[in-house]
Amino acid sequence: MTSTSTDFKEYLFGPWKIDSDEVFTSSQHCFAFVNLKPVVPGHVLVSPKRVVARFAELDSAEVADLWCLVQRVGSAIEPHFGAQSLTLAIQDGPCAGQTVPHVHVHILPRRAGDFERNDEVYDAIDAASKDAASAHKGEHLDLDKERSVRTPAEMAAEAAQLRTLFN
Amino acid sequence: MTSTSTDFKEYLFGPWKIDSDEVFTSSQHCFAFVNLKPVVPGHVLVSPKRVVARFAELDSAEVADLWCLVQRVGSAIEPHFGAQSLTLAIQDGPCAGQTVPHVHVHILPRRAGDFERNDEVYDAIDAASKDAASAHKGEHLDLDKERSVRTPAEMAAEAAQLRTLFN
Repeated sequence: MTSTSTDFKEYLFGPWKIDSDEVFTSSQHCFAFVNLKPVVPGHVLVSPKRVVARFAELDSAEVADLWCLVQRVGSAIEPHFGAQSLTLAIQDGPCAGQTVPHVHVHILPRRAGDFERNDEVYDAIDAASKDAASAHKGEHLDLDKERSVRTPAEMAAEAAQLRTLFN
Repeated sequence: MTSTSTDFKEYLFGPWKIDSDEVFTSSQHCFAFVNLKPVVPGHVLVSPKRVVARFAELDSAEVADLWCLVQRVGSAIEPHFGAQSLTLAIQDGPCAGQTVPHVHVHILPRRAGDFERNDEVYDAIDAASKDAASAHKGEHLDLDKERSVRTPAEMAAEAAQLRTLFN
């Protein structure tokens, strides 16, 4: 079942509230939302609506729904951002770099040469995840980092644009 | 439906044959196999039996089956290798570092401090993927790399051990 983000007023991403303005599509069990600190254009996240930390905690209906939504979102954003590939990744637990204790799939449209070495994209994901977690918590960020964390208005504008791909 | 690897004599991983000795569990549409060049202990791969390059080419039954198998394999190997987290990733297309044109999920058991910086695991995945692709093709490898590509006997032994987790 596909539904629009207007079905919900608010989504949870771990301990934080994600405004429906930042959600651009959803499914029965999951939602897709824009990123506080994307590392490439079109870097978005897909999470189950139910807040669980580890992938193993999802039931089989949630697993299927999560990855069918990832497939649908990836297929739409790859051409939208002029990309030719996708990086799809879950940091499943703190030792894998997870900073928000809520299952989330990173979807990153990839273009030839976007990073000098392909794996640098993951370094960027890790750094951005830590900065975003600090920003959500209201912790002080140094100016260089703060400048690259987006405002709610910027995020809502991107989500509105992406929402048109799914209606 | 869960089945054992003995259902098939041979699996394809892109253009290469994967012997059933290297497959340790399978599902209706997918199979899990040990890695020619693991970057951490227990680094294994899960692929659909159908050879398609991109995640978008899988139908919804294959998507669900693939990720339910990943969940099952991850839950079994994480404690088996004394790990506390998992890295789950698809390099979906050449611009994302994909070296074998066949959808495959990397599952890596992660332990605290296994890499100095968490993202170094992806650098290792990329380097190992390129070396493994060269080895499959029969290309010359330098000695340092060659020493770390495993023999069929070593791989079969690991698969036999892992198979006991799924019977």
